[in-house]
Amino acid sequence: MTAAPDWNWHGGAVEAAKRHFGGGNRPWLDLSTGINPHCWPGADTIAIDWHRLPEREALAGLEAAAAAHFGAAPHHVCAVPGSEVGLRLIGRILGGAAHHVAPSYRTHGEMFAGTAPIARGEARAFAGTLVLANPNNPDGHVTDTASFDAMLAGREGWLLVDEAFADCDPAASVAHRVQDEAPLIVFRSFGKFFGLAGVRLGFVIAPAPVLAPLRALLGAWPVSAAAIAIGAAAYRDRGWVEAMRERLFGEAAALDAMLGRHGFAPKGDCPLFRLIDTDDAYDLFDRLARAAILTRPFADQRRWLRFGLPGSGEALDRLDAALAYD
Amino acid sequence: MTAAPDWNWHGGAVEAAKRHFGGGNRPWLDLSTGINPHCWPGADTIAIDWHRLPEREALAGLEAAAAAHFGAAPHHVCAVPGSEVGLRLIGRILGGAAHHVAPSYRTHGEMFAGTAPIARGEARAFAGTLVLANPNNPDGHVTDTASFDAMLAGREGWLLVDEAFADCDPAASVAHRVQDEAPLIVFRSFGKFFGLAGVRLGFVIAPAPVLAPLRALLGAWPVSAAAIAIGAAAYRDRGWVEAMRERLFGEAAALDAMLGRHGFAPKGDCPLFRLIDTDDAYDLFDRLARAAILTRPFADQRRWLRFGLPGSGEALDRLDAALAYD
Repeated sequence: MTAAPDWNWHGGAVEAAKRHFGGGNRPWLDLSTGINPHCWPGADTIAIDWHRLPEREALAGLEAAAAAHFGAAPHHVCAVPGSEVGLRLIGRILGGAAHHVAPSYRTHGEMFAGTAPIARGEARAFAGTLVLANPNNPDGHVTDTASFDAMLAGREGWLLVDEAFADCDPAASVAHRVQDEAPLIVFRSFGKFFGLAGVRLGFVIAPAPVLAPLRALLGAWPVSAAAIAIGAAAYRDRGWVEAMRERLFGEAAALDAMLGRHGFAPKGDCPLFRLIDTDDAYDLFDRLARAAILTRPFADQRRWLRFGLPGSGEALDRLDAALAYD
Repeated sequence: MTAAPDWNWHGGAVEAAKRHFGGGNRPWLDLSTGINPHCWPGADTIAIDWHRLPEREALAGLEAAAAAHFGAAPHHVCAVPGSEVGLRLIGRILGGAAHHVAPSYRTHGEMFAGTAPIARGEARAFAGTLVLANPNNPDGHVTDTASFDAMLAGREGWLLVDEAFADCDPAASVAHRVQDEAPLIVFRSFGKFFGLAGVRLGFVIAPAPVLAPLRALLGAWPVSAAAIAIGAAAYRDRGWVEAMRERLFGEAAALDAMLGRHGFAPKGDCPLFRLIDTDDAYDLFDRLARAAILTRPFADQRRWLRFGLPGSGEALDRLDAALAYD
């Protein structure tokens, strides 16, 4: 009996996988998330003032650095301790009925008490409050500008765009379109592109009437001294950002080529992960786990398996070999 | 004209004070908060896994270590990214009318939309939802066990006890009295006693029906990898905790003696800060600020000034000398 349904939650549970599948002392290859395997390199050397409360100016500096990276106005940008809590708090603040594009990130279905799934094809014409991810997770689909134009024109409810995976391709983002008069809210994640998910840092980009109650719920020190110091420095490191974008697209192409050699047709326009469709993804998940490779199955989609980037030629070869073993 | 009312906010704004008051290159002595000047020493050497999302087991381990320190049941303890956001989220979750004991911590007046201040003397007989701090801030008053017995007996509304400064004296805490059947919620702060406010870590200790919606609002990764690693190790360091309690009471006694020699009668049963009552605290604030010592004035109490612990004999002497200069 497959164990795959136990691993369909959020990914990243490699310690639990070690306990379940064993694998001896061999290091696990964790491909179960969309977190960049190449971390921004400054996190371990940057000085963190753990002692004092973060000052308001330091928080404003982080938000300004992030805003410049997003192409958004700084006064629309609010730092939150992870985009996960940002999604949930905004759902609570807005309230009311909503729809969320499915399939997508699990939390989108938990933001609003009265939410219902809607197919991507129907979402474009839906004028009520709508949650979608761009790029989407897990299929990596990128919604184009014309679709956003259509969704924003004459909109009645809120359009909530989760851009947790948008850093690889800034052209896909609508963060610059947030304004006080438009019903658009954008969510960004620090940890995925910068490979630093343990920092817990995200951003809500929203009109002032939404940010005011959000800031009131968070209080004066919403994120840690580490999130401020590491986040501000990383967002300002434009050379690293540019080089990383190019590197990730290259590595995704190599993953695509390898998966293609095994007969898969990987989907996705975000280079941080790829989705495959196969006869029995649970069986493939189990086989890979027995080779100490953790991937991401889905509870209600037995044909799907998602792969994060292996991060090195050696890791890619290891996945290649495990896929060849039948 | 005094600048003191600009500094009555939360304390800890030493960078802003430097800009306003100058003071050259002399290091400022920040006595504007109640944060322990002696940090738990492991924060800078502990290894932090910034890359991965924190695992569920690691979060549970932190909550168990904190619960043991609080004397509470682990399943009643929920980690939050700072007690500040914990207070605000619980106010939002409970809703309804409330009273908050005043004077106390500013946020208590912002947790509930429909809240009203109540004097300490009247609070004991008030049966509705009530917020109070123990020890209280800024006067350091400790509410005794008999008063809590009286407040919990036959209670109709919630009793919300902010124990942000309770670590120095575990006998004052009511964390062990939280149970699923009692209308009691306790808030704890990591950063104050452990001197690590930049970590942003706090705890809500509450009945299961309150923790469920709180966890639903926070999502799966409420605190950073650093908060988990540092917090768990610090709470388990019982030798440091015991020795620090003794040290802080000794240093508070030395501060009391020095303030007494200047004619003040400092108030407070929490060793992390002392409150004095004087004819013009704003004037005294200004004089100390010109000596690069930041203290804590109060917007609506011109006679009050709060001092954190100086943290060394040298710093105590510096405050002593600045108070003597007239």
